Amino acid sequence: MTPEEKLAELGFTLTKRESALPFMALGKITGNLLYLSGATPPAGWVGRVGEVYTVEQGYEAARLTGYAQLEMAWSILGDLGRIKQVVKLLGMVNCAPGFVDTPKVMHGCSELYLEVLGEKGKHARSAVGLQALPGNVPIEIETIFEIEV
Amino acid sequence: MTPEEKLAELGFTLTKRESALPFMALGKITGNLLYLSGATPPAGWVGRVGEVYTVEQGYEAARLTGYAQLEMAWSILGDLGRIKQVVKLLGMVNCAPGFVDTPKVMHGCSELYLEVLGEKGKHARSAVGLQALPGNVPIEIETIFEIEV
Amino acid sequence: MTPEEKLAELGFTLTKRESALPFMALGKITGNLLYLSGATPPAGWVGRVGEVYTVEQGYEAARLTGYAQLEMAWSILGDLGRIKQVVKLLGMVNCAPGFVDTPKVMHGCSELYLEVLGEKGKHARSAVGLQALPGNVPIEIETIFEIEV
Repeated sequence: MTPEEKLAELGFTLTKRESALPFMALGKITGNLLYLSGATPPAGWVGRVGEVYTVEQGYEAARLTGYAQLEMAWSILGDLGRIKQVVKLLGMVNCAPGFVDTPKVMHGCSELYLEVLGEKGKHARSAVGLQALPGNVPIEIETIFEIEV
Repeated sequence: MTPEEKLAELGFTLTKRESALPFMALGKITGNLLYLSGATPPAGWVGRVGEVYTVEQGYEAARLTGYAQLEMAWSILGDLGRIKQVVKLLGMVNCAPGFVDTPKVMHGCSELYLEVLGEKGKHARSAVGLQALPGNVPIEIETIFEIEV
Repeated sequence: MTPEEKLAELGFTLTKRESALPFMALGKITGNLLYLSGATPPAGWVGRVGEVYTVEQGYEAARLTGYAQLEMAWSILGDLGRIKQVVKLLGMVNCAPGFVDTPKVMHGCSELYLEVLGEKGKHARSAVGLQALPGNVPIEIETIFEIEV
């Protein structure tokens, strides 16, 4: 099964994205690395984890944000089969002071990558808590992929 | 027009920088990537965006910090013409809790890169809100460049 | 003296680490770059710098976290002699609002790298303040190394 088929099976429909800003790209390719811009959950997710959202809801937001990153990669690459491995994730959780479960939130993204990409989806990761994110979304994630060129 | 000429036209005078700490470098080159250390605005910028500074002032701080990153790259490379593309920016805004406009602040840096480097200045980016920055400056930015080696 | 011998002289005993999570790796190698997952101090370090911990204690936590990163690199590489250079550190300090000394805290990691790896230990770096870290640890650090392949 291809990553695109796996995403469809999980209920995700890929839609091509484009950067809305003249100075930004969804991601940049250098050599065989693809650095994505940070992604956030779809419209409607507003508020901090540990205040507005539970850890379980944060996990769901992270899963949707992981999907957004895959959609961005697909928009750039045309084919998720070109991903050789996920190198590194930075997961930034918008959370209440003293919130301790940023890793449990980020598992939502990490587990989606493993489901969709198999062993290639395994990655290095940091999962940390931030003061504020654009539009007060609960999470922002950025990924570095190694790709076929 | 070279990037250096463009910077001069915009009123920025390049001055060679050196790292003041024995264990740090302004940036490190590996292969054809240049990873810069984080830069902050010039002396005098102290306080959070959304408290001490407005979004517009934060934009100006981001522009000055983008200039600082270009000055660091120039100090290392000797010639900004060696920049093949800007790969990725991480913009970290020191802001009040609940601040939602971190992207509008970071546009100050992004737009400077586009003005100075043209199409090569387009980049992947995250723009997020932090709890604290060194010396309580309003913004810190780090850039990855692809360069001619 | 090898980096392993230097670590032993400083009182650090290397113990092989493995990732406890099926979707995560201690670090990923792509080309001649090693991207490590974020590391935190050993068990028992709980609380923010500037509240529970002083800057000096934060420095010690950063030194221990730098050691954790070297232990992770050693677990992956088998030999710290394969490190050609430290490229970049991101130091994330869990701190009180308005805390200004994140660099002084991160020096604990940076100075350890210089002691253990000599000139190869010099690096680009950002040292910033976060709202929350996993388990409320005082610091998390992630490192990019250039390695012999």
